[in-house]
Amino acid sequence: MTESNRPQDDSKTVVTPWEVVAEEGKLINYDHIIEQFGCQKLTRDHITDLEKCLGENTHPLLRRLLCFAHRDFDKIIELIKEKKKFYMYTGRGPSSESMHIGHAVPFLLCKYFQDVFKCPIVIQITDDEKFIFKENLTLEDSIKYGMLNIRDIIAFGFDPKLTYIFSNYKSSSIFEKNTLKISKLISLNEAFKVFGFGMNSSIGMAQFPAKEIAPAYSSSFPFLEKNTPVLIPAAVDQDPYFRLARHKANILGELKPTSLYVSLLPDLRGPNRKMSASDENSSIFLSDTPEEIERKIRKHAFSGGQATLAEQREKGACLDSDVSYQYLKYFMEDEDRLHEIGRKYSKGEMSTADIKTICVEEVQRFVRSFQESRKRVSDDQVAEFMDLSKK
Amino acid sequence: MTESNRPQDDSKTVVTPWEVVAEEGKLINYDHIIEQFGCQKLTRDHITDLEKCLGENTHPLLRRLLCFAHRDFDKIIELIKEKKKFYMYTGRGPSSESMHIGHAVPFLLCKYFQDVFKCPIVIQITDDEKFIFKENLTLEDSIKYGMLNIRDIIAFGFDPKLTYIFSNYKSSSIFEKNTLKISKLISLNEAFKVFGFGMNSSIGMAQFPAKEIAPAYSSSFPFLEKNTPVLIPAAVDQDPYFRLARHKANILGELKPTSLYVSLLPDLRGPNRKMSASDENSSIFLSDTPEEIERKIRKHAFSGGQATLAEQREKGACLDSDVSYQYLKYFMEDEDRLHEIGRKYSKGEMSTADIKTICVEEVQRFVRSFQESRKRVSDDQVAEFMDLSKK
Repeated sequence: MTESNRPQDDSKTVVTPWEVVAEEGKLINYDHIIEQFGCQKLTRDHITDLEKCLGENTHPLLRRLLCFAHRDFDKIIELIKEKKKFYMYTGRGPSSESMHIGHAVPFLLCKYFQDVFKCPIVIQITDDEKFIFKENLTLEDSIKYGMLNIRDIIAFGFDPKLTYIFSNYKSSSIFEKNTLKISKLISLNEAFKVFGFGMNSSIGMAQFPAKEIAPAYSSSFPFLEKNTPVLIPAAVDQDPYFRLARHKANILGELKPTSLYVSLLPDLRGPNRKMSASDENSSIFLSDTPEEIERKIRKHAFSGGQATLAEQREKGACLDSDVSYQYLKYFMEDEDRLHEIGRKYSKGEMSTADIKTICVEEVQRFVRSFQESRKRVSDDQVAEFMDLSKK
Repeated sequence: MTESNRPQDDSKTVVTPWEVVAEEGKLINYDHIIEQFGCQKLTRDHITDLEKCLGENTHPLLRRLLCFAHRDFDKIIELIKEKKKFYMYTGRGPSSESMHIGHAVPFLLCKYFQDVFKCPIVIQITDDEKFIFKENLTLEDSIKYGMLNIRDIIAFGFDPKLTYIFSNYKSSSIFEKNTLKISKLISLNEAFKVFGFGMNSSIGMAQFPAKEIAPAYSSSFPFLEKNTPVLIPAAVDQDPYFRLARHKANILGELKPTSLYVSLLPDLRGPNRKMSASDENSSIFLSDTPEEIERKIRKHAFSGGQATLAEQREKGACLDSDVSYQYLKYFMEDEDRLHEIGRKYSKGEMSTADIKTICVEEVQRFVRSFQESRKRVSDDQVAEFMDLSKK
């Protein structure tokens, strides 16, 4: 962690997953750690209990109470007594080519448990973590250290049948690999500003932008050549992602993505908001029946026409705020007819009811034609579209 | 987004990827959006240029300037002129069973471009995003909506050979699926407190804890039965992860993980800090030669003995702060001998030089035996340990 985001603690012993240090000349205060973390002390009674199950002395790390704290280890002793199954999980953050003897300690303990209780173990290599947290560590070195450390770990003598070692990075897809690289380059500060996150946002929310940015680089897909330019046609509200994608492109050795923004189809209730799926009456679904479409447009479509027919004849309609006319702009194919309608409606030669009738017809036509195609989509087709190997 | 983390904007038009709304009775101000986002206006000149390349009228969404803004679309027109390759990327956040006609608009544009320019397109289904961002949306519904929306998208008539549609969730591993679920349950607030993150931390850092928590639940691994209890032997500085893992277990329908914490092997420089790989002289690596081990312990190992031999004979050593003695506790197998050494050293019957000699021998023995195993680790073995299908 950098200076500015180093964790602070009231006491003088700093303990986080990235740092453990007490004052110069003092000991690490394990009782204080137990209190601070709220875990439990391991006692002589636990060891006696365990040795009763075993019928022999247990490992020195336990006997000497170098294992000093736990959470629910009693329950594991119960499982052992009842000869029930459990698995172990431990991990390694590969920070150097060779592990040091301190790193060996938890593995010695795990190996002992596996020998005695024949339990499976999963070992996570957090090469992704080291890359993300160490400012000057390259991804290549982090992965290399991880693979070297795996050899160290195997050398402790684990049983391959009962042991699964996985690198977070190597077990992820190309797409997720790119997501990881991007997520190191965006600070929370930046994400708060660009996406409006707050302290109540989840850590999943915070990281999500990296996932939407990843496909904007051709290297995220094995079937694309390196540095194939991209065009991103999208609704304009997605621009913050692609602004960041452009901003980070150079440093990642990628091309700046290109985007093209469509204006937002207005909500039935008025042109001041985009259509939203969360309110039934504010949007027309692709699954709506012709009757639903007619009802929604007649009843809810905001009109840019005047309050009375007489007034409409005199003053004409405001096309920009008339939702029905706006829909025609999106869905009517005939250019000349659209212009003619616009001219007449804005001059008061057509009424809101006239426009709504045309809008209902055009939207019904569009949705009907869509629904016919939709009916013909088969499961095989879905599978084909989602099969990376067929591109 | 919840009330408390809704983005604020100086103007009255709020535009983020999750919300677009202007004041009641006003229009969405597209010029303002362009200014706010810093993208460019699409002009009649672009359309003329494009239609020159095509030799015919382009799509109504372009001709009517419903596509109103862009970033570098000029470059795409250049590529088209030069008949060079580009790909398209668009996506869909599945918020409902059926898409609405507003959602159709960008796809109509993409389909048109694919028809005219035969370019590949990747379509991201952000079922993960909808699950993470919508408080009351279940993962199951989000995935279901995604698969239904994919059928809608296919119905627009894309070419399967040139189109890759992927669900963020479905294309991820079981392990990453669990990571996602966990990452929705941890707020940035919580993560700042527990892990000491700050606003300069990256979004990758913020999300990482979910990845270290995931393996603490047996459902992360296909070869483990549901609700197999877990034991996590670890260095105590990893407790914050497992405290959170226990805290979130109920809501995820998982067992609370059990952990067992080893004290931290002290740094050569003193017992106030854990051994760190970042300083060569503060740690003994598993790859060190016997000579290096001897040099490091003789020169750097912090002594709990007295300043002079005479004083040591009189007062004896402090075992707790003597790094060499501490190492013996970890690595000397003979219990009786360890006690005898402790007794003599603390009474002044042995000197720091004596203890260091024994420590050098014991650490050399441990490291030598490790190095012999390490030499025998083969590539095939590495592959076997990392093969999920062989567990």
